[in-house]
Amino acid sequence: MSVHARTVAIFGPGLMGGSLLMALRQRHPGVRLAAWARRDGALEELRQRGLADTCSTDAAEVARDADAIVLCVPVDRTAELASRISAVVAPDALVTDVGSVKQPVVEGLEGIFSEHRNFVGSHPMCGSEEAGLAAARADLYEGALCVVTPTANSQPAMVERAAKLWESAGGRAVEMDPAMHDRAAAIVSHVPHVAAAALVELAGRSDPSFRTLCAGGFRDTTRVASGSPELWTAILSQNRAEASRAIAALVGILAEFQTSLENNDTDRILELLSAAAARRAEVFPPI
Amino acid sequence: MSVHARTVAIFGPGLMGGSLLMALRQRHPGVRLAAWARRDGALEELRQRGLADTCSTDAAEVARDADAIVLCVPVDRTAELASRISAVVAPDALVTDVGSVKQPVVEGLEGIFSEHRNFVGSHPMCGSEEAGLAAARADLYEGALCVVTPTANSQPAMVERAAKLWESAGGRAVEMDPAMHDRAAAIVSHVPHVAAAALVELAGRSDPSFRTLCAGGFRDTTRVASGSPELWTAILSQNRAEASRAIAALVGILAEFQTSLENNDTDRILELLSAAAARRAEVFPPI
Repeated sequence: MSVHARTVAIFGPGLMGGSLLMALRQRHPGVRLAAWARRDGALEELRQRGLADTCSTDAAEVARDADAIVLCVPVDRTAELASRISAVVAPDALVTDVGSVKQPVVEGLEGIFSEHRNFVGSHPMCGSEEAGLAAARADLYEGALCVVTPTANSQPAMVERAAKLWESAGGRAVEMDPAMHDRAAAIVSHVPHVAAAALVELAGRSDPSFRTLCAGGFRDTTRVASGSPELWTAILSQNRAEASRAIAALVGILAEFQTSLENNDTDRILELLSAAAARRAEVFPPI
Repeated sequence: MSVHARTVAIFGPGLMGGSLLMALRQRHPGVRLAAWARRDGALEELRQRGLADTCSTDAAEVARDADAIVLCVPVDRTAELASRISAVVAPDALVTDVGSVKQPVVEGLEGIFSEHRNFVGSHPMCGSEEAGLAAARADLYEGALCVVTPTANSQPAMVERAAKLWESAGGRAVEMDPAMHDRAAAIVSHVPHVAAAALVELAGRSDPSFRTLCAGGFRDTTRVASGSPELWTAILSQNRAEASRAIAALVGILAEFQTSLENNDTDRILELLSAAAARRAEVFPPI
């Protein structure tokens, strides 16, 4: 698997960016790695760990010599960073990102890189409730679904290079329309996050003695609620229309459960629970 | 840790009952184990695996000689089974159960065993989405919170023996009022189950292509939705008043999220997510 790049520049060496540096270093030792971070501390660590050949807090300097640029900053900071480097990015360099929301990011960055049409959005679906370089690992992308979100404006060659980049880190690339991605992400990721946070809030508002009863089910169901509040506020805000619509749909389903319980309609409860168990087995077949 | 019983009889060798047999056999080889099941097949397996010294599909026969009786059948079948054995249970034998809902079970069984006041309710909080003897394991109770739910009618000696029984299987016993338990269980277990099922239903009602995006967050948040629909219908139905009330409260919190998103009130979203992350860290301190 070729990376199709001599120099890959990673902007923001957190969980996603740091893991990408580690994966590429391990799997493609011939590729030159460059890194940008806001602070010197993170870059010093990258240097010491041999995870970047060149490092700088000057974004333009890092962008200038790269064949592939991956913006790994929070989804609400991508456009600002892109604006700072767009003038110096090589016309044939691929630019992509890792943001959990695609429509607003793609719209913004296609505008910023409109001259050479070299931006294609990406969303590798392998984040976790952990964050930062300390949580990064070389196998984060292994087997992970990496969504690439081309539009009618995208250069097919750039789309292909973005897919290859994720595959070279171990991921499985799939293409999806940005708006479709955001609707899907609201349902399978953003609203499950909201539900997890709401369940913790529900427990938090109750008698403190109740918390002693929190067992494995509660722990797993609410795991994602430990994710970075700042990162998730940005994600939910950027995808607020779809997230809000999906919350309304979830509330509708919860109301069905509530009505069935109030009527003690065990047939309907059994029907709802059976459908959920069967559907989940389709998505995650029992091992 | 003494079991305070020479013969422990387990009714229903599924995940909970089977694991209890395995734990007691391993940790207290001197204790005699008896088992009842509806079908001969399960009993034959227990015999072959050396997990029961006596077995029968005749409930009265198994109950007669036991010093401690643990009813491990679904929560809506406990009372019927109790009625079948109550006439032959020794006056000084402890009777307890493992039901996920306590108030209706305790009310029913305190009535059935009112003469000798030898029933005390229990709920070891170590179930999982798996079920049956095939999923049973000797360490299921290790470190697990085992709630014992005495009432004003309970004999203190029986309460103590129930606690000791769970501790002898490796659990941590705590006492809680049955009604309080059911309110807590609705919040930390039953409604998280409903939420997980509702999230799967939400995904199921969407475009099938969305399911390809289901990643680790969705998998963990919805894990419990793979639990036995029959078992969970019984649990939710038995605890319907508390579950229904907790669903309503959850819907209220979700509505707060939805309003914040519609207003793009990022301060409020951040506040809600930060509170959830902090509260979850209190309940499950990061390792």
